This record gives sequence, structure tokens and C-alpha cells, in this order.
Amino acid sequence: MFLTRRFKHCPSCGSPVEYRVPADDNRERATCTACASVHYENPINVVGTLPVWGDQVLLCKRAIEPRYGLWTLPAGFLELGETSAEGARRETDEEAGAQIELQNLYCVLNVVKVGQIHMYYRARLLSDRFDPGPESLEARLFREHEIPWDELAFRTVRETLQRFFEDRRLGREYLLHCADIG
Amino acid sequence: MFLTRRFKHCPSCGSPVEYRVPADDNRERATCTACASVHYENPINVVGTLPVWGDQVLLCKRAIEPRYGLWTLPAGFLELGETSAEGARRETDEEAGAQIELQNLYCVLNVVKVGQIHMYYRARLLSDRFDPGPESLEARLFREHEIPWDELAFRTVRETLQRFFEDRRLGREYLLHCADIG
Repeated sequence: MFLTRRFKHCPSCGSPVEYRVPADDNRERATCTACASVHYENPINVVGTLPVWGDQVLLCKRAIEPRYGLWTLPAGFLELGETSAEGARRETDEEAGAQIELQNLYCVLNVVKVGQIHMYYRARLLSDRFDPGPESLEARLFREHEIPWDELAFRTVRETLQRFFEDRRLGREYLLHCADIG
Repeated sequence: MFLTRRFKHCPSCGSPVEYRVPADDNRERATCTACASVHYENPINVVGTLPVWGDQVLLCKRAIEPRYGLWTLPAGFLELGETSAEGARRETDEEAGAQIELQNLYCVLNVVKVGQIHMYYRARLLSDRFDPGPESLEARLFREHEIPWDELAFRTVRETLQRFFEDRRLGREYLLHCADIG
């Protein structure tokens, strides 16, 4: 798998690593040939929000790669030192400059191929004035029929939007969705 | 924060790293002094299950550090190449040798201090015969009044069990709980 074997050298001492199965383990791990320390590689988390204003949702047009120029919900990598909710709030501020009230965790989407879990919280917009940061070309509201389905940046964004509009159409509660993105 | 600044050398080329804020960023990252590559450190995921058999839940007595000899729900680090549900199932097999039907995602618990998110799925035990692996001294069923509250290995285990018994007592649906463990 392309995600593994990313380490060539030991982050502790700089010596070359070898991928070996440690004695008490069943998977190959980056193991230092000098200091014997073992370095693990694990999936990471992307956190974001689905900000709603009446019958409209907020999307941001990406000003960065990957997917420059495509539309996304505000989201990014969870950082050390913050909760998933704090990360989702921070990304919404950084990418859209949007004022929100964070609501429930709405989607937990496994994207195994890239070693990520994407978590989207629902959010209530407190204003329709935005101030997108340097990672966004634009931040604007879309009604369902206006969503640029062919210009969405990520499959997890499509999945989250589809489920949201379906729940709304069916008058369902906005409860947690879990899904795997193949 | 003790979780950051774990890299001393570049995992790509082995040269020393320095912690610097990259041009397009707002946090210090491990940046190679030779090849200039940037290495990120992010929270990781622990996945597990809350396996139920009638009015009893399954706990495992840890045979490894940390928390040797204390009781835990079956759980462990999510690996690359698997979904959170697959990881939870794998850990339940490895630590308890339990046959389960996996149910809904029940708890998402941020443990910021150690840079982890713990996710517990509810599970229906299909048998009360267990076959704990080398990471467990014992796997057994507990009724609520038998839970060894003072000998639980992790606060997320306590939190998950407390919420489960409370939901059951109140006849509530077992919907998602999100919480932060301080």
C-alpha cells in the first residue's frame, strides 16, 4: 500500500530504518537499524463543518492544491492540542471566516485509500457575511439545486451534502452517518 | 506540549530537523535542514467495541503495559488499510477472541492530552465463549454491579460504560455520544 513505508530514516537518531515485524506485533513497522526504536504510521483525521443558513449551505472554493478551484466544505487536518470539534471550528474560521454555532457530529467517513477519517459537524451560521482566508478563493451559500456537484473537491463533501439534503427532504433528524468511501 | 517535537531527524533523508513555521502555515512543523521536507504530527485513533451479552458486558484484563492487570474494553490503534469498524472488529478478535455482530458507533471521545480520538462501537456478542490473545490475561462478562470501576485501564472505557448503563437504565436509544476527556 502506497501509504506505508514512508520512513527511510529514524526520526529519533537519523539512521536508516528497515520495515520489520516487531516481536510482539503482526505488522511491519519502521524499525531503526541503529537505535531499534519502532515508528508507527496510522490514519489521520480531517475535521470540518456543514454550515447551514436557512435552505442554503456554505461552500468554499479552494485556493490551494490539491483540487485548486473546486468547491469544498470547510475542513482540514486535525491538529495536536485540539478536539475534533475545536478543529472543525478552526477550519471554518480559517477557510470561510464564518461565524457559526457548532452542532452535532453528522458524518464519520472512512477513506481507507488515503488513510484518513473525515468528520463533519453540522453548524448553524450566525451570519451570511464571510471572510475567506488565503486557502479559499471564495466562500458562498448554495441552495440544493445550485450545488456544483461536478466541481466538488472531495468525495466526502459530496457524500455529506447528499445525506444532508436527503435527510432534510425526508424530514429526518440529522443523526450520525457512518460510511466508507471506497 | 509533550506530544509535539518528537522528530529529531528527517524520516526522508536522516538529516536533523528544526521546528519552524512553514511559509503557508501557522504552526511549527518538523522541517528538514537539508532536504526541506516538512513532517506533520497529528492525533491518532483508538478503535474498539462495547460487546454486550444480555445484561452483561465484556471486559479484558490487560496483559501488556500500559495499565497491566487493569480492565478494558477491547480496543487499540487504528491501522492503515482498515476502516474504523474493521479496526474495532480486529481488536475485539485479537484481545478477546469474541464473536460479535458490530452495531452503531456509540462514543467518539477526544483525549487531547495524549493526541488521541477513541471510538467505541456497540457490538452484540454471538457467544459467551472467548479466546483472549496474548495482550489479555483474561476476558469475561460483567453485570453492571460487578464492573471493577476502580480497576479500569482508561478513562474512555469508564466513560463509555457509564453512558451505556445510563442509557439502558433510562430506556434511551443507544445514539452517539461525543465527549472530551480532560
